[in-house]
Amino acid sequence: MVDHAPFMQAAIEEARKGRAAGGIPIGSVLVLDGEIIGRGHNQRVQKGSTIRHAEMDCFEEAGRLPASTYQRSTLYSTLSPCDMCSGAVLLYGIPHVVVGENKTFQGPEDYVRSRGVNVEVLDDAECIAMMEEFIEAEPTLWNEDIGE
Amino acid sequence: MVDHAPFMQAAIEEARKGRAAGGIPIGSVLVLDGEIIGRGHNQRVQKGSTIRHAEMDCFEEAGRLPASTYQRSTLYSTLSPCDMCSGAVLLYGIPHVVVGENKTFQGPEDYVRSRGVNVEVLDDAECIAMMEEFIEAEPTLWNEDIGE
Repeated sequence: MVDHAPFMQAAIEEARKGRAAGGIPIGSVLVLDGEIIGRGHNQRVQKGSTIRHAEMDCFEEAGRLPASTYQRSTLYSTLSPCDMCSGAVLLYGIPHVVVGENKTFQGPEDYVRSRGVNVEVLDDAECIAMMEEFIEAEPTLWNEDIGE
Repeated sequence: MVDHAPFMQAAIEEARKGRAAGGIPIGSVLVLDGEIIGRGHNQRVQKGSTIRHAEMDCFEEAGRLPASTYQRSTLYSTLSPCDMCSGAVLLYGIPHVVVGENKTFQGPEDYVRSRGVNVEVLDDAECIAMMEEFIEAEPTLWNEDIGE
């Protein structure tokens, strides 16, 4: 059984890096055979990007990979992936998504499961606290990031 | 009633620009009140990008917009949007998607409709011919772009 803790911790480090740079504290890592092959964090503020959510930034940083690699990988994200990031998971056939928390925001987890993906939610207190601090401090920025 | 032809033609121009640069010929424009506010084309080859499908490149080029702008916009794409690009449409609450064709590839149109989006398919001969030429010439690249 895989120990999710070190990979979720790496995703949290990405999120904290983003927050320290004035950005939105969501981080993600892509893992293959126990090795991190991509890392990223939300870049809305830093790069003025509307598409570089943490998971997307992670996929972009991982670079062009064969389908067979995606299909054996696990994506870790500190927050429940939104519609866009969930769609990227489906496009590339990522079979397993480990989510830090879905209390402060919940993407289409049931739909993603219905498409055959194993979505695990850790309910991680550090992930929740990080988002609660951010949403209280920057509600307008947060709403922009989720299209509200 | 909106005439889709000039906007689809602008999306086709984007696609052709991409193909001329050695890329994948899929283009997209975002339209608000009869004006194009974003344009893009697939950048997998040109930027080595795994996330800049045409629609994503278009959203990125349009820049950070208020939710109220997305919610009155129409997205044009020469090809049926994949899971990722459909997810971006859902994230930002784009109410209307006009698709050039869905013969050479079909994304989750019924799911997107079930979420309240008006998805129109034009069955455009120029869009079909463009993709058929490309898929025959570059099958490996095409499969990479759709995660296969």
